[in-house]
Amino acid sequence: MKTVVWQSLSDNQQESLLERPAITDGRNISRTVSDVIDDVRQRGDQALLELTEKFDGIRPASLKVSADEVKAASSRLSDDMKAALKQAYKNIATFHKAQKPATLRVETQPGVVCEQITRPIQSVGLYIPGGSAPLPSTVLMLGVPAQIAGCQEVVLCSPPPIADEILYVAELCGITDIYNVGGAQAIAAMAYGTRTVTKVDKIFGPGNAYVTEAKRQVSNDFRGAAIDMPAGPSEVLVIADSSADPDFIAADLLSQAEHGPDSQVILVTPDPSIADRTADAIQKQLKALSRADIARQALGSSILIVADSLTQCVSISNHYGPEHLIVQTRHPRELVSQLTNAGSIFLGSWSPESVGDYASGTNHVLPTYGYTRTYSSLGLADFSKRMTVQELTAEGLAELAPTVVTIAEAEGLDAHKRAVTIRVEKLTAQSQRIK
Amino acid sequence: MKTVVWQSLSDNQQESLLERPAITDGRNISRTVSDVIDDVRQRGDQALLELTEKFDGIRPASLKVSADEVKAASSRLSDDMKAALKQAYKNIATFHKAQKPATLRVETQPGVVCEQITRPIQSVGLYIPGGSAPLPSTVLMLGVPAQIAGCQEVVLCSPPPIADEILYVAELCGITDIYNVGGAQAIAAMAYGTRTVTKVDKIFGPGNAYVTEAKRQVSNDFRGAAIDMPAGPSEVLVIADSSADPDFIAADLLSQAEHGPDSQVILVTPDPSIADRTADAIQKQLKALSRADIARQALGSSILIVADSLTQCVSISNHYGPEHLIVQTRHPRELVSQLTNAGSIFLGSWSPESVGDYASGTNHVLPTYGYTRTYSSLGLADFSKRMTVQELTAEGLAELAPTVVTIAEAEGLDAHKRAVTIRVEKLTAQSQRIK
Ligand SMILES: [Zn+2]
Ligand SMILES: [Zn+2]
Repeated sequence: MKTVVWQSLSDNQQESLLERPAITDGRNISRTVSDVIDDVRQRGDQALLELTEKFDGIRPASLKVSADEVKAASSRLSDDMKAALKQAYKNIATFHKAQKPATLRVETQPGVVCEQITRPIQSVGLYIPGGSAPLPSTVLMLGVPAQIAGCQEVVLCSPPPIADEILYVAELCGITDIYNVGGAQAIAAMAYGTRTVTKVDKIFGPGNAYVTEAKRQVSNDFRGAAIDMPAGPSEVLVIADSSADPDFIAADLLSQAEHGPDSQVILVTPDPSIADRTADAIQKQLKALSRADIARQALGSSILIVADSLTQCVSISNHYGPEHLIVQTRHPRELVSQLTNAGSIFLGSWSPESVGDYASGTNHVLPTYGYTRTYSSLGLADFSKRMTVQELTAEGLAELAPTVVTIAEAEGLDAHKRAVTIRVEKLTAQSQRIK
Repeated sequence: MKTVVWQSLSDNQQESLLERPAITDGRNISRTVSDVIDDVRQRGDQALLELTEKFDGIRPASLKVSADEVKAASSRLSDDMKAALKQAYKNIATFHKAQKPATLRVETQPGVVCEQITRPIQSVGLYIPGGSAPLPSTVLMLGVPAQIAGCQEVVLCSPPPIADEILYVAELCGITDIYNVGGAQAIAAMAYGTRTVTKVDKIFGPGNAYVTEAKRQVSNDFRGAAIDMPAGPSEVLVIADSSADPDFIAADLLSQAEHGPDSQVILVTPDPSIADRTADAIQKQLKALSRADIARQALGSSILIVADSLTQCVSISNHYGPEHLIVQTRHPRELVSQLTNAGSIFLGSWSPESVGDYASGTNHVLPTYGYTRTYSSLGLADFSKRMTVQELTAEGLAELAPTVVTIAEAEGLDAHKRAVTIRVEKLTAQSQRIK
């Protein structure tokens, strides 16, 4: 970890300090992935079974996970584990239910009513990565909003063997379409459908470089599927003043670092001694971690920045736009109105990132890699879409007609003008008949 | 125009009847566009000036439009035109202001507060196409929400000469960064910035195949810019029952058809005589149109579908997912709850599409090409992003700790667990000291 004093850097140095490393996937991944997608589109289930055997070393008896297997998984879990997952489910459901929008109805001028209504996206696909440890929390973060939004078909794909925790959470979320398939082949199956796997409209979830590239490719094809957001390495930025506890800061930085060797970890503080003491605390805590090797790699590129003031800390954070932003200051609430670019914000000493990862209620699927400038924290809105409605009375149309006619003339669109005048003329004719 | 009876078709025929024509842009456009983007990134303003001269046949004295030019434009416009644009501005502003979300605050369990807050996207770029007629309505649809969302920098690019109407609406929307540049070079300039043109975070607006491809390319580059939504030809689907006026239906279908030769125009009705009479009315009205040639081409691929029932009309519409959906039935309101995929919906006899194009208050930037399944009608949300906030009390964290610890253990993430336990331990130590 290196410590830098912000003010001692030139503009260019400041800029490049906060620059994210380029993601170099290269042609190979892109070609491999497009071959996998083609294969799945042509050979369907057969390709899925063969690719699963090739990449996951398992040939599942069936692509679809049966209800019996889900039941068995649940019976194998400890009561503690089930209680924890249920509590997390409850909090996440509470927060996402609160996001349900009311129908918006506005009479913009007399007789002209405009509305905004929402509808669930009908079919969605959730991708849950495999790996050494299961990720039930990701099922919660995708499955709960899909359920609350009211998506009619929810498909879940994960490389076999699918962990009991994942199957249990899927059951909590009412998901029954679960498939033993991972990687780019899972994305292809959900984007285009096979005999067994339902085609979906939008695909959500994290994954390795192949999954990310597959999502990119299917989202660039209008016959494919939309995707949640672009992916990048996970990140945390901590803003801390002299009131912060270096042990807590270190624990938060390390929990980000253990996610992967490419994790981005940044501390910004106006207090040099906080930077020093945090560096010490990190070394101490690092020793006891099972994933210390991974964390150490991530820390290699991480930075402790000493700034001039809290205001400068905020402006550095806004410029970087971290996925996770932890604020450990005397009055964290006071900074919120100045924070512009972040995925999820953790206020105060008692709000570590891991509560948001699992159980506070917020979603842990967040924009990374600077996409906080334009993308949102995943929410109910991502599982629905907004449509507008307008309804005019005859009088409302008559009143608005001159405006529409004048603009249609300016834009040279005769038929647009006519669609209004033909109605107003009939209306005039009618009212004259009445007289 | 061809009339088909839905029930007489096989499943495959139904499917292919509603299939949209493939957009075949091909390698040439993609290559040309990437060359233009490279050129702008390397040579900046100089490239913009040369490309503008090459493609638009004009070498503007300055890339930036001066305040004096905006003032002069306004003085040249008629009072009627200004009044119409102001009225449209007012209605659009009213509807988009109503979309401002309140901060969401939920205590998911005692001592665990989760919030959803929104922030404007700081800098946005609006692209306004050129062509034979000016498009002030597009400036309204992009400029008004940018202004209401509170975007700090709003850049507008349009090929010169920029029409007076466009400059006038830009002024209404408080836009002062206006540039004489169009096409792929404008998209490149806004995505990467030049000495004169400000780099933006997200680019909005319609355009030809080159503009669309440029938007696609810059949105696939994380150093580029996000974009509003994928583009496709404009579409209308009209659902009409026997109560509808064929003259009105014809006028609405024609106003869609005049947009361009690739416009999609569909009528679905349970009443065969409505289909026949609409076809006749179209022929009659077509004669008087200045853009009759364009409309005639669009009508060549358009269809009148005779369905079994209104319910079947709705299901055909939902399957197609039109950009514009006009419902001219006895009780249009009753159908709304069944409508799932559409951009903007026009209810009843007095709500022609042209009111939504210009002045009712709804946005005319809408998903096309089947993207209504997953994308929303443009709104305030597209000019902002949602962030989440969580703040736990010490007691709230202590209460939630077992849940987080159990899930962190399942996921094999030590440091995530530690970030919680290290806090709870200090808390326990503190409270014991107090005792
Ligand atoms: Zn984490
Ligand atoms: Zn139109």
